[in-house]
Amino acid sequence: MTSTNKKKAVVLLSGGIDSSTTLAIAKAEGFDCYALSFDYAQRHRRELESAKKVARALGVKKHLIISFDLREIGGSALTDQQISVPKDRAPEADNLIPVTYVPARNTIFLSFALSWAEVLQAENIFIGANQVDYSGYPDCRPEYLKAFEQMANLATKVSVEGRIHFQIRAPLINLTKAEIIKKGLSLGLDYSLTWSCYDPTSEGKPCLSCDSCRFRLKGFEEAGAKDPLLGV
Amino acid sequence: MTSTNKKKAVVLLSGGIDSSTTLAIAKAEGFDCYALSFDYAQRHRRELESAKKVARALGVKKHLIISFDLREIGGSALTDQQISVPKDRAPEADNLIPVTYVPARNTIFLSFALSWAEVLQAENIFIGANQVDYSGYPDCRPEYLKAFEQMANLATKVSVEGRIHFQIRAPLINLTKAEIIKKGLSLGLDYSLTWSCYDPTSEGKPCLSCDSCRFRLKGFEEAGAKDPLLGV
Repeated sequence: MTSTNKKKAVVLLSGGIDSSTTLAIAKAEGFDCYALSFDYAQRHRRELESAKKVARALGVKKHLIISFDLREIGGSALTDQQISVPKDRAPEADNLIPVTYVPARNTIFLSFALSWAEVLQAENIFIGANQVDYSGYPDCRPEYLKAFEQMANLATKVSVEGRIHFQIRAPLINLTKAEIIKKGLSLGLDYSLTWSCYDPTSEGKPCLSCDSCRFRLKGFEEAGAKDPLLGV
Repeated sequence: MTSTNKKKAVVLLSGGIDSSTTLAIAKAEGFDCYALSFDYAQRHRRELESAKKVARALGVKKHLIISFDLREIGGSALTDQQISVPKDRAPEADNLIPVTYVPARNTIFLSFALSWAEVLQAENIFIGANQVDYSGYPDCRPEYLKAFEQMANLATKVSVEGRIHFQIRAPLINLTKAEIIKKGLSLGLDYSLTWSCYDPTSEGKPCLSCDSCRFRLKGFEEAGAKDPLLGV
């Protein structure tokens, strides 16, 4: 199949383990990938450098970074300096949605992805959402993603004209972090390019105690692999 | 009812007739209104000045303008200089979705509104969508708005925790442009503050031949009223 005959996919890419693995999966499925990242004034903006590296390494057709300032809306430890990024959360807190939740973030991200997918006529939109080793965010659940897909197909010119039926693809939805990492490693993904830490003060080194670092640590441990970010 | 006991609403405000009338309706219903506008690099960005004037005149609690660049995504005459804004479209063209359609625009706008509504704990989100005298945009139809509402209630922390049930309110959905204008006039809305023209080259004066101008002209005519923008 030549490149011009390949189907296109828009892939949300934050630069973390999940979205980078999702991009590797979309590529392995044979899609021409269009990676979409967001500079939303997240305090851990370092992840965008990782997104650029991963996009380049995986040979995406285009990498678009859209900028807007979610600090104006607020309500999250990831954008508001007044709210601390939690460290070493107690296990019993795992049932609560933490302060790192960003209000309606995946809805905003998927909406831009839908807009680009319509222009590209890309039927598949990939997102690295998963509901196993995650932080309990409501917009990572399959019922949410299904509802977004239904809305998307009523929202756009290409779908109401019957030319495209959008699919929101979340290949990691039921995988543990260890399974995700094994999958990525089997596809040759270099996790040294990725970044997970939420802590804006961690310079170059992950803090190892925020939720995101802890899921990553546990994932590599359970996968029986070594996190290349942690050095020798 | 004192101001602090009032319920809050997020109102999408472009500065045109529909969204300005919608804001007047939300205010008349007794809501504390939080107006949300977007600088998305629309070529007719002049509408934002109108949005500011309308927000001020109607005494909103806060007016937030979020900026991002939809030119990077493209695909619309409203953002892409390579696509001309159509003038004097033939009546038979009215069944087609025109090139002024911006891919997934209302989905993007409503997503930011949802994010802000979650932070404000505002149950009502108002949008000036209507399906009568409009340009055939798919994201102005009630079935789309209903699907967005369903998705929204699965998307957020406050809704899945059962504290808020979001409602997407489109009070103009079945009104003609004339009925909208009559409604606004009955609420004391000053339409000289609003702006409708899509043409980026119309400086200070509406072009009177783009779709948006034509709906406005027809609306004032059928309402038996004079458009204050057209001078004496």
